[in-house]
Amino acid sequence: MKYYLGLDVGGTNFVAGIIDENYKIIEKAHIPAGAGRDIKEIIADMVKVSLEVVHKAGMQISDFTSWGIGMPSFVNPETNLLVHANCFGWKNVPIYSYLEPYIPLPIYIENDANCAALGETLAGGARGHENVLMLTLGTGLGGGIILNHKIYAGADMMGAELGHTKLVYNGEQCTCGQYGCAEAYCSATALIRQAKEGLKRNPDSFMAKLCDGDISRLEAKTVFEAMEQGDILAKQVIEQYIDYLSCAISSFVVIFRPEIIILGGGVANAGEILRKPLQERLLVNTYAGDEIGVPEIRLAECGNDAGLIGAAMLEKYGMDRNKKQGVEE
Amino acid sequence: MKYYLGLDVGGTNFVAGIIDENYKIIEKAHIPAGAGRDIKEIIADMVKVSLEVVHKAGMQISDFTSWGIGMPSFVNPETNLLVHANCFGWKNVPIYSYLEPYIPLPIYIENDANCAALGETLAGGARGHENVLMLTLGTGLGGGIILNHKIYAGADMMGAELGHTKLVYNGEQCTCGQYGCAEAYCSATALIRQAKEGLKRNPDSFMAKLCDGDISRLEAKTVFEAMEQGDILAKQVIEQYIDYLSCAISSFVVIFRPEIIILGGGVANAGEILRKPLQERLLVNTYAGDEIGVPEIRLAECGNDAGLIGAAMLEKYGMDRNKKQGVEE
Ligand SMILES: [Zn+2]
Ligand SMILES: [Zn+2]
Repeated sequence: MKYYLGLDVGGTNFVAGIIDENYKIIEKAHIPAGAGRDIKEIIADMVKVSLEVVHKAGMQISDFTSWGIGMPSFVNPETNLLVHANCFGWKNVPIYSYLEPYIPLPIYIENDANCAALGETLAGGARGHENVLMLTLGTGLGGGIILNHKIYAGADMMGAELGHTKLVYNGEQCTCGQYGCAEAYCSATALIRQAKEGLKRNPDSFMAKLCDGDISRLEAKTVFEAMEQGDILAKQVIEQYIDYLSCAISSFVVIFRPEIIILGGGVANAGEILRKPLQERLLVNTYAGDEIGVPEIRLAECGNDAGLIGAAMLEKYGMDRNKKQGVEE
Repeated sequence: MKYYLGLDVGGTNFVAGIIDENYKIIEKAHIPAGAGRDIKEIIADMVKVSLEVVHKAGMQISDFTSWGIGMPSFVNPETNLLVHANCFGWKNVPIYSYLEPYIPLPIYIENDANCAALGETLAGGARGHENVLMLTLGTGLGGGIILNHKIYAGADMMGAELGHTKLVYNGEQCTCGQYGCAEAYCSATALIRQAKEGLKRNPDSFMAKLCDGDISRLEAKTVFEAMEQGDILAKQVIEQYIDYLSCAISSFVVIFRPEIIILGGGVANAGEILRKPLQERLLVNTYAGDEIGVPEIRLAECGNDAGLIGAAMLEKYGMDRNKKQGVEE
């Protein structure tokens, strides 16, 4: 049995794990992210938690052939710099040089949304499929594309930024500075904004009661809960949100025609009351949907582990050009 | 020297050609499309013009290993039916069964926009590149994607329909029936519509004079000509058009990060007065453009031959699964 070492670097926790050939996590270790600290301390913790999980499993670094890391960022393959990791306030960080001295393995770094897509394809909702689109409906709108069983991140490995494709020309400003990005309409943050806008027109909505009148406490799940309780505004907000999301997905469908679409992230926890109407709107809102159909939308199954599983498997299923960046041993 | 037999099926003409290993056209034959005729007559002419070019070159069908065909349509690989070819009014046509009896070669059929992208990559503006995006700004907005030197048309070969990605949520209705497609804002037809809308507000524009007051005669080139003559409305219309187009392209860039973007079709004949400001707006309107740049936009170089060259080379550079559809000899 071959084992794979992965690290999922999140804004809240770093989770290291060891995965077996069947994509089962056999050991795991956590450490708080502690964002805001000095970069050297964060790097040291990335190493520490990874060594810890190897130790916990009674294994050694030499038992592995690579170290796969998922991060909320991407590496520019020309400069080998991590372009930006907003949660740490990093910009153009020489991440390989920082990590290389500590763990003598080839390092593969990939965007966390891409890792999650890979994890769900290998071990989750898209098992057995080779062409998969995954969207993570969280603070942002993460997108990951699996083509022929491998991560696809564009010709220069800095693409597949599905959240920043344009959905509403000249629309709401996105966190990225651009206007009308899909993320600005389809993330959990966007859903909350849309609900708050609705509450301005209709402050008596049950949504306000669910957060005890403190609208700043409104969450994505509050909107779904209010809808299930029969609140009309919440229903309108969610129908509009689903229509935005279906249109965003329709663009990815007419480009990639994936076999399966996986929904993850906080909003996807709503489950069938999101998935089912989304599937219907996707059919309506997709070019040639009536003639050739649309892919099946499924809910993610690996939860928070998807990114870790995908990270561990980057050596095998990352983009081919990842290899060019492997650390020389 | 190996030779390749191609056929470009257009709404006006069918052009057959023989291409050598250096992607040079060594012989060509034309026949009028004669749209509206019985399907059997059209099929017969597709065969006739292809046999004619072989004869003109003093060659035989057995000198070729495939017959590559570019059409304004796509084949559903599950049913082997041509899904639709609007210019002929065809729907779900068993194209392989119709063609097979006449020319005993494996047949490769691909969307004409994809063939054009391949032709420009092999022999035109994107020579030497492996990851190329081509947009054809014509009656519609055709899109073709070359990944790792091969046509990419989605997991089921019915994708890469870039013209029908959403650009303006809930916007203008597209010819496809959907709303807000990129095609409805970025095709030549869309540019003409935008100019006509402007003329309603400002009937004294020089554009009206250029078509002798008969606005129905307004063409894309009329708008560019009026702008070059200093017409303010024409300038506004083109600036708006370029902004739409740059936003549409930005979505493809953040997904694919191609090395080169090629512009073809009637609107691209405007040349530098289109290309240069479009390059500038693309940088402004693309996510992370300021940090990682945007690809170079170039004008197509093969003109009407791009689709023919691409069609002839489908055997070598079509999608791998094309092979599954090859006619059994
Ligand atoms: Zn954005
Ligand atoms: Zn359309």
